[in-house]
Amino acid sequence: MSVAKEFEVANTEYAASFSKGGLQIPPKRKVAIVACMDARLDPARALALEEGDAHVIRNAGGRAADALRSIIISQQLLGTREIVIIHHTDCGMLTFTDEVIRGKIRSDLRQNADHIAFLPFGDLNQSVLDDIKVLRESPLVLDVPITGFLYEVETGKIVRVGDNL
Amino acid sequence: MSVAKEFEVANTEYAASFSKGGLQIPPKRKVAIVACMDARLDPARALALEEGDAHVIRNAGGRAADALRSIIISQQLLGTREIVIIHHTDCGMLTFTDEVIRGKIRSDLRQNADHIAFLPFGDLNQSVLDDIKVLRESPLVLDVPITGFLYEVETGKIVRVGDNL
Repeated sequence: MSVAKEFEVANTEYAASFSKGGLQIPPKRKVAIVACMDARLDPARALALEEGDAHVIRNAGGRAADALRSIIISQQLLGTREIVIIHHTDCGMLTFTDEVIRGKIRSDLRQNADHIAFLPFGDLNQSVLDDIKVLRESPLVLDVPITGFLYEVETGKIVRVGDNL
Repeated sequence: MSVAKEFEVANTEYAASFSKGGLQIPPKRKVAIVACMDARLDPARALALEEGDAHVIRNAGGRAADALRSIIISQQLLGTREIVIIHHTDCGMLTFTDEVIRGKIRSDLRQNADHIAFLPFGDLNQSVLDDIKVLRESPLVLDVPITGFLYEVETGKIVRVGDNL
């Protein structure tokens, strides 16, 4: 059975007891979260989010540059006024370089991916600080509170990065 | 209190009963989910995902083109072999055009965003079919099962789009 089919089966249970049908589009808590796609991180559980609370933008690494389109839409059209960035320990982005993945794509897929910046990083804390800076310096992002965290996949804890709270 | 501070407080409870510390980086169910950032959609609850199960990539609209970097990393470095796309009813992406948001940015922020494709859409089913096609036709994406769903924010149900299951 495909995982998609398993999702369909599992969803019937969620829908059967669903009680959140009347929510509006704008996030109730006016926050946009930018987090890594990592399977071990569940932002809703880790932060006690309810349906309707927050925009959750996720990509490989939780990189701000790759979230810019979504953040602009979130702020300009849907009223969020705070940003929270979450990277995490043991991140896959620490394990490769653009050169490595481009080489793998060249040898395995016979394709050229030299035009894609995969945005890996070598230092976790720095990656969070860098991404806060990217957003603070973008003229397309509003001047709102931006907080960075590292999520510890070993403990379930979020640890603040920098003194920006 | 900032929402970030509220997240820190809420997270202490999650961490206190955390029992998922031994998970590996590659998603256990070898699937990457591409879903909208919408606050009303909680992919983990709606699909019964456990920590460690799946990559969850989220952006405004759940657009495939904007998820490509993450999907390539997910497949090439972390072994996922299935993709599930989830758009949803009452999506904000149905409510504007590139012209509208670029005009708002020009008048409110005094900035030019004409270089950004915001990827809005006019038809929900078609947006899912379009995104399946984008991935199927990309030479950088492996030939894996790709299934599209619409999540109904009114009922909590996922409804399959197309016959691709």
